[in-house]
Amino acid sequence: MSINYENFLSTAATRMRGSAIRKMSGIAAQARDLVSFAPGFPAPETFPWAEFQEIARELLTGRDGSVLQYGPTRGYKPLLESVHAIMASRGIATTMERLMLTTGSQQGLDLVARVLLDPHDVILVELPTYTGAIMAFRNAQAELVGVRQEDDGIELEDLDETYTRVQREGRRVRVLYLVPNFQNPTGLLIGLEKRRALLDWAERRDVLIVEDDPYRDLYFEDSATVDDVRPIRADDPKGRVVYMSSFSKTLAPGYRVAWIEAPEPIAEKFELAKQAADLCVGTLDQRIVHQACARGILDRQAPLLRAHYQHKRDVMVAALQREIPDGVTWPAPRGGFFLWATLPEAIDADAMVPRAVDHGVIYVSGDAFYVNGSGQQQIRLSFAAPTPERIVEGVRRLAATIREEIAQPAVEPPAPAVL
Amino acid sequence: MSINYENFLSTAATRMRGSAIRKMSGIAAQARDLVSFAPGFPAPETFPWAEFQEIARELLTGRDGSVLQYGPTRGYKPLLESVHAIMASRGIATTMERLMLTTGSQQGLDLVARVLLDPHDVILVELPTYTGAIMAFRNAQAELVGVRQEDDGIELEDLDETYTRVQREGRRVRVLYLVPNFQNPTGLLIGLEKRRALLDWAERRDVLIVEDDPYRDLYFEDSATVDDVRPIRADDPKGRVVYMSSFSKTLAPGYRVAWIEAPEPIAEKFELAKQAADLCVGTLDQRIVHQACARGILDRQAPLLRAHYQHKRDVMVAALQREIPDGVTWPAPRGGFFLWATLPEAIDADAMVPRAVDHGVIYVSGDAFYVNGSGQQQIRLSFAAPTPERIVEGVRRLAATIREEIAQPAVEPPAPAVL
Repeated sequence: MSINYENFLSTAATRMRGSAIRKMSGIAAQARDLVSFAPGFPAPETFPWAEFQEIARELLTGRDGSVLQYGPTRGYKPLLESVHAIMASRGIATTMERLMLTTGSQQGLDLVARVLLDPHDVILVELPTYTGAIMAFRNAQAELVGVRQEDDGIELEDLDETYTRVQREGRRVRVLYLVPNFQNPTGLLIGLEKRRALLDWAERRDVLIVEDDPYRDLYFEDSATVDDVRPIRADDPKGRVVYMSSFSKTLAPGYRVAWIEAPEPIAEKFELAKQAADLCVGTLDQRIVHQACARGILDRQAPLLRAHYQHKRDVMVAALQREIPDGVTWPAPRGGFFLWATLPEAIDADAMVPRAVDHGVIYVSGDAFYVNGSGQQQIRLSFAAPTPERIVEGVRRLAATIREEIAQPAVEPPAPAVL
Repeated sequence: MSINYENFLSTAATRMRGSAIRKMSGIAAQARDLVSFAPGFPAPETFPWAEFQEIARELLTGRDGSVLQYGPTRGYKPLLESVHAIMASRGIATTMERLMLTTGSQQGLDLVARVLLDPHDVILVELPTYTGAIMAFRNAQAELVGVRQEDDGIELEDLDETYTRVQREGRRVRVLYLVPNFQNPTGLLIGLEKRRALLDWAERRDVLIVEDDPYRDLYFEDSATVDDVRPIRADDPKGRVVYMSSFSKTLAPGYRVAWIEAPEPIAEKFELAKQAADLCVGTLDQRIVHQACARGILDRQAPLLRAHYQHKRDVMVAALQREIPDGVTWPAPRGGFFLWATLPEAIDADAMVPRAVDHGVIYVSGDAFYVNGSGQQQIRLSFAAPTPERIVEGVRRLAATIREEIAQPAVEPPAPAVL
């Protein structure tokens, strides 16, 4: 008799769903000559390979056994001190007791879910929002309720109306999740006045803000300044904000080193949750990242990366303006990795995917980022990883795809004939 | 007004407790000249440093950008293929669809908890059992119920009685967690006949076995053979076993690379849970570990490690026999990292810790490993990390501690005088 494994799954497991983006990466890995605008991968040609190689050589002599030993759950102390300095450079006064390293920002989101969310709790998120956050919060069986965005980010009026409606339904709302800088997927930046207003709102409504800030260093100097990316956390003396950031976009994602900062009672719980989740961040990874901070490599990288991704943004925008049919619109990204395009009404972005793959190009359709079932008309294009030449080629293929789609929209595949 | 963060914590977070072992590591890090028998750390002098250094040099040339890029959640395919071959060498026929890499075995335990346990579910564990498993299962708000052990491992009669009692109370039991090879903390080995009997029992009672096997390669050739460590999973054609193992004890724990193997419907859920937990294992770590497999380094390490740890076991046992007062007993470990000692009845191992630290030695007191409140008379001594000289010195200090403790047992610290 075969075993019915459904009987062994937890309620949470029964409800788990995969990420559309990582599914796209699967498609991309299989197809030949595909220009992939899908995953939010950084450009490996920007990684400081020679420096990493030299650092690894010095660390792996065997003189210091702790380089490959288990390490403390909070993280390698010298790296935590580097993070403390990075926080200060972003206007955030913190303490070592509030800081912890995480196995990528994704673990930070998972810890937020486990420590701050009970099943059926409501967490407020932007419409659209980052899929990794959606997965983590859903795995905790929380309910995600979306708030609309406008040009300068989340709409305050809709935020309070949504909050009030959910409260009236008798449900608990303790957390608002935000990506204020070059949001994934829209690329939007929350305005400075709005950041202060969000803090006031959180105070008034007794809500915590989880501020996810991986793209902060990647502002494009033609349209944004360091003042525009000031974290909400920087103006939060009262302890309303849990702040997260990462080395994945500025050094390399393969190291899986990010950090989370929170009021002490919450940071202590993050530590306990992480201890049971994976004991500690990879220690060689932590040591390499620490050396990259200590030797000034991170500081040297930041302006190079800003220029690199700004150039790719320029190439993509120019190609879109040249190639793409009328009726497709997008805000020009002022930083980060993503361009968020809205297609003509007749097009369903998800249904168009097979045609795009036929043309040799791939994107993520917008519905992956919406917790309210919308987003059919949107696509997210990442300009970070492909070379400029591939960006131009990919946009050409995308334009051809859209032109065909306008002429002959995708239909549901015909049912097999019954004879 | 200050914020009451208690109001923001999830039920799970409110109940989270830390690990005694990692607390001990904290003490050990602070004290001067302490011989630490506490954490189950491998010996860094056994790590193949020169090979790791050469591998890292070759990987970090920049010729292959994927070395530092995000990777697939299941893991780097060539490393999964190496794991497939390792499994075959252990007598386990598996498929790629059943395998996934995890961020250390601790993540495997966490995934087991999330995918297989609902709050209030009962999971059966050995008395005593691994603290990392206790933490992970408790964080899922499962209830851990212990089963006694004898010389050849878990007692079958107590297992079935415990199962029956829990079932009668109307509670659900779906999982039995076992560490059959050189168990942490007792060092015990489950007998071969008993392994088969456990499979039969699991089939009869419709329970899954989670087999945690980090120490399998570390059998001591004077008292155990490769046949003695045959995994339960090797004789499980029906799919009753979820199997976990790791490179932390054979290559290095700093890489955080382990694996889990499960029937496909469960492996799929592990993948979804891991995707939301940390996206993927560190990619440089995976690549280094893969090269260590491909170049035969892992195979060369295994016999060296067996000899290394067997020698340290010999040194510890000889020192104990020489130094330790009568009334302290222990089974001689036939593999692994740990010696499990029982103290005279008058001694409380936990209360004795401050005196041990005064003498410059540290261990983990047994109660950390028991889910039923017992273990006050036991201590776990890890002989893996200290050098032979330090083992001898540490045992001397421990003997002095125990002699003093017998003469003058520790009492609760006196309350501060009130004048």
